[in-house]
Amino acid sequence: MKPSSSTSDIAGKPCILCCAITGSVPTKAANPAVPISISEQVESSHAAVEAGASIIHAHVRNDDETPSSDPEKFARLKEGLEKHCPGVIIQFSTGGRSGAGQARGGMLSLRPDMASLSVGSNNFPTRVYENPPDLVAWLASEMMKYEVTPEIEAFDLSHILQAIKMHEDGKIFGKLYVQFVMNVKNAMPADKEVFDFYAHIMATRAPGSPWCAAGIGPTQHVVNEWAIAAGGHTRA
Amino acid sequence: MKPSSSTSDIAGKPCILCCAITGSVPTKAANPAVPISISEQVESSHAAVEAGASIIHAHVRNDDETPSSDPEKFARLKEGLEKHCPGVIIQFSTGGRSGAGQARGGMLSLRPDMASLSVGSNNFPTRVYENPPDLVAWLASEMMKYEVTPEIEAFDLSHILQAIKMHEDGKIFGKLYVQFVMNVKNAMPADKEVFDFYAHIMATRAPGSPWCAAGIGPTQHVVNEWAIAAGGHTRA
Ligand SMILES: [Zn+2]
Ligand SMILES: [Zn+2]
Ligand SMILES: [Zn+2]
Ligand SMILES: [Zn+2]
Repeated sequence: MKPSSSTSDIAGKPCILCCAITGSVPTKAANPAVPISISEQVESSHAAVEAGASIIHAHVRNDDETPSSDPEKFARLKEGLEKHCPGVIIQFSTGGRSGAGQARGGMLSLRPDMASLSVGSNNFPTRVYENPPDLVAWLASEMMKYEVTPEIEAFDLSHILQAIKMHEDGKIFGKLYVQFVMNVKNAMPADKEVFDFYAHIMATRAPGSPWCAAGIGPTQHVVNEWAIAAGGHTRA
Repeated sequence: MKPSSSTSDIAGKPCILCCAITGSVPTKAANPAVPISISEQVESSHAAVEAGASIIHAHVRNDDETPSSDPEKFARLKEGLEKHCPGVIIQFSTGGRSGAGQARGGMLSLRPDMASLSVGSNNFPTRVYENPPDLVAWLASEMMKYEVTPEIEAFDLSHILQAIKMHEDGKIFGKLYVQFVMNVKNAMPADKEVFDFYAHIMATRAPGSPWCAAGIGPTQHVVNEWAIAAGGHTRA
C-alpha cells in the first residue's frame, strides 16, 4: 500500500495517521506485541502502513528494552523502513526519556523526514520533563541544518504559543506541525474544552498549519475522534 | 490604615491588592528602591499597606542581595510585619529561585497566613523552573499541616487545572486562590485571549474561588487592568 492511500477521508479532507510503534516506556512484559529489536520495529511499521499509517514515529531500544538514542540504531531502523515501507514518512523521537542534553539530537544528521520536538517543560507522572531553552533552540537549529520537519509535542497551552512564535521567527524547518499531547499525569488532562481552545488557537494564529492530537493510554481513541472531527490529524 | 480598607471597589466587589515587595531577582543596581534588608522590607511593606495593599508577598535575601529561603530571616520579617503592619496578610514565597527541594518550604512552620505554591513545571527565560510532583505534594502537605493557605502560581493552563484538582482532592489548605502569571519569557505570554480562557476556567470549574493575575515587567499594569475588569484580584 502506498502512503498516499494511507489516509481516511473525512468530509473530503485527508487525515494523517501517525503510528508510534514502540514509544519509550512499554516493555514486552506489559504487552508482548511491543516491537523492540530493529527487525520487530520494521515488521510492526510495515503492518501499520498496511493499516493506513503514513507517519512512523520511532524510538529505539537497547537489548534490555531500556530506551536509547543511539544514532547507529536509528540508522539501521531508517534503512529497514526505507526498504520495507518505501515512501512512509519517518519521524524520530528526540524525547527526553531516551537520552539527556544534546544526545537527544544525535540522530538528526541521519536526515529523517521528521523528528519530535518539545519546546517547553512540564511535569510527568513522577518527574519533571526538562526541555531547557538552550536545548530547545539547539534541537530546532539542528533540524534546520539537516532539513528535518519537527512535530511539536505540546504538553500545555504555552507550548503551542511558543511553537507558533518559533515558526514566525523562522526557527522551525518546514511547515509548522503541532501535536496536542493529553492525559499525561501531572500535565494536561484529556479535556474537550481545552482541546477545542487548542484547535481554535491553531486555526486563528497559525491558519493552514496542520495539527494532530494524542491521548495517552485509555484516552487515545476519544482524543483521536475529537481530532478527526475537528479537521486535525491523529497520533496513536 | 487597616487592611479592611485597603481595597478598591469595582462594581461593589472589593479587589485584593497583593504587593511583592522584593521578589527574587531584582537588585539595587537595577532599582535602588528594591528593599533587601529586613528593616527595608518592613518599611516597604508599610508603604504598600498605606497605599492599599492587603497581602504582602515576601522573599528574603542574603546580605549580598542573592535570594535566600532561610527560615530565620523569614521569622524576623514576620515579626516586623506583625508589629508595623498589623492585620496585613503575610504570604511567603516557596519559589524555586530561593532554594532547592524541601529547603523551599523550611519557613512554613512559621505559619504565615499564606505561601506561594507552584504545582507544575515550565520554562523560565534561561532554565527550567522545576517543581517535581513529589515536591509539590510535600509543600502542599506542609501547608496543610501548618494551616497556610497557598496562592497557586499558575505559569500555564495545566497548572490551573492541577490546582483545581488538588483542591477537589482535599490537598489544598483553605480556599483555592490562583494567580495567573503571564509574560515570563519561554512560559505564558501576556495574552488577552488566554487570560479570558483562564478566567472562564476558574468561573466554571471552581465557581466562587478567587483568582488574581500578574504580568511580569512592562505588562504588569495591563494584566492588572484585565484582572480588575474581569472581577479578579491583582498582584504587583
Ligand atoms: Zn515518542
Ligand atoms: Zn481567538
Ligand atoms: Zn515571588
Ligand atoms: Zn467552559
